[in-house]
Amino acid sequence: MADPPPSFDSPRQIVLQLTSSDPQVINNILYNAVNLQKFYGQDNVQIAIVAFGAGMEALYDKTTPVKDRITSLQQYGVEFIGCGNTMETTGHSPAELVDGVDVVTAGIAEIVERQLRGWVYIRP
Amino acid sequence: MADPPPSFDSPRQIVLQLTSSDPQVINNILYNAVNLQKFYGQDNVQIAIVAFGAGMEALYDKTTPVKDRITSLQQYGVEFIGCGNTMETTGHSPAELVDGVDVVTAGIAEIVERQLRGWVYIRP
Amino acid sequence: MADPPPSFDSPRQIVLQLTSSDPQVINNILYNAVNLQKFYGQDNVQIAIVAFGAGMEALYDKTTPVKDRITSLQQYGVEFIGCGNTMETTGHSPAELVDGVDVVTAGIAEIVERQLRGWVYIRP
Repeated sequence: MADPPPSFDSPRQIVLQLTSSDPQVINNILYNAVNLQKFYGQDNVQIAIVAFGAGMEALYDKTTPVKDRITSLQQYGVEFIGCGNTMETTGHSPAELVDGVDVVTAGIAEIVERQLRGWVYIRP
Repeated sequence: MADPPPSFDSPRQIVLQLTSSDPQVINNILYNAVNLQKFYGQDNVQIAIVAFGAGMEALYDKTTPVKDRITSLQQYGVEFIGCGNTMETTGHSPAELVDGVDVVTAGIAEIVERQLRGWVYIRP
Repeated sequence: MADPPPSFDSPRQIVLQLTSSDPQVINNILYNAVNLQKFYGQDNVQIAIVAFGAGMEALYDKTTPVKDRITSLQQYGVEFIGCGNTMETTGHSPAELVDGVDVVTAGIAEIVERQLRGWVYIRP
């Protein structure tokens, strides 16, 4: 473990990139989030899954292959964040997203900003 | 936004990895660069696209599927950097590159060094 | 080169993610490790290749397509690290790994912790 160890007051902060519409890739990323929570303990880690490009397909309520898993992970505190640029380019609206998914202007810039605030980046 | 916010004197510095020869992947990475410039404002962000391995196919003048887009992004200040190791291994010479593309000894080491100088790494 | 330059006492520390079972991807990652050692000099860089998910297929002694290359890179000081979670989920045991491969509880968390200890992350 790096120093200081993760704790409720100083949790690990991890941003996972979701840029594929392949159901297996999407499922693996959700599985990564579960494993990170198991490893650190749910209170000791904050996880944000940021989608852009093809990864946005995972977040549309009517077509996502993983709606139940998203809802479950949200209940465990995992953030899901969608890319406004991608939605605009592909003709989607925020109303189509699974409940609780946040929207940012540019998903890729969100990953940049989180890294600059100390979040650790993983591109599964 | 992380603190300090990006500015002309303190721009965001972002290095994007290009390691695929798939035209759709290549186009998406160029699109990512455009979105980052739109989001931050062109003067407030420096973007370097570093290619190695199969990604080098994007940078050869006679065969790249995106020559015009590369030239256009270069005019907006985006750096394109190719990998000398990959070129040597695959029998290409720097003369084959699109005008203005820089060459480094090892593309992957360039990404390492930029990160150590404070650039944020994204592997789209 | 970022400052300070790499040296025996202050080597570059680089963690490479291995998450594909495609022999070409696996071979490319091993080739990346070789190129990094050539670029920095073997004594000036520490490289850890951390596998999880499908990438674990590269590390099982009886089925890996790159056993000899792994053994060779280990002799040059490259660390290979496998994911206990993936092995448990897929019904593999540590005894199946190529000699010298280390096992951690969660490969993805190992990449997080190494980044927090100053290692540079590359997802080839």
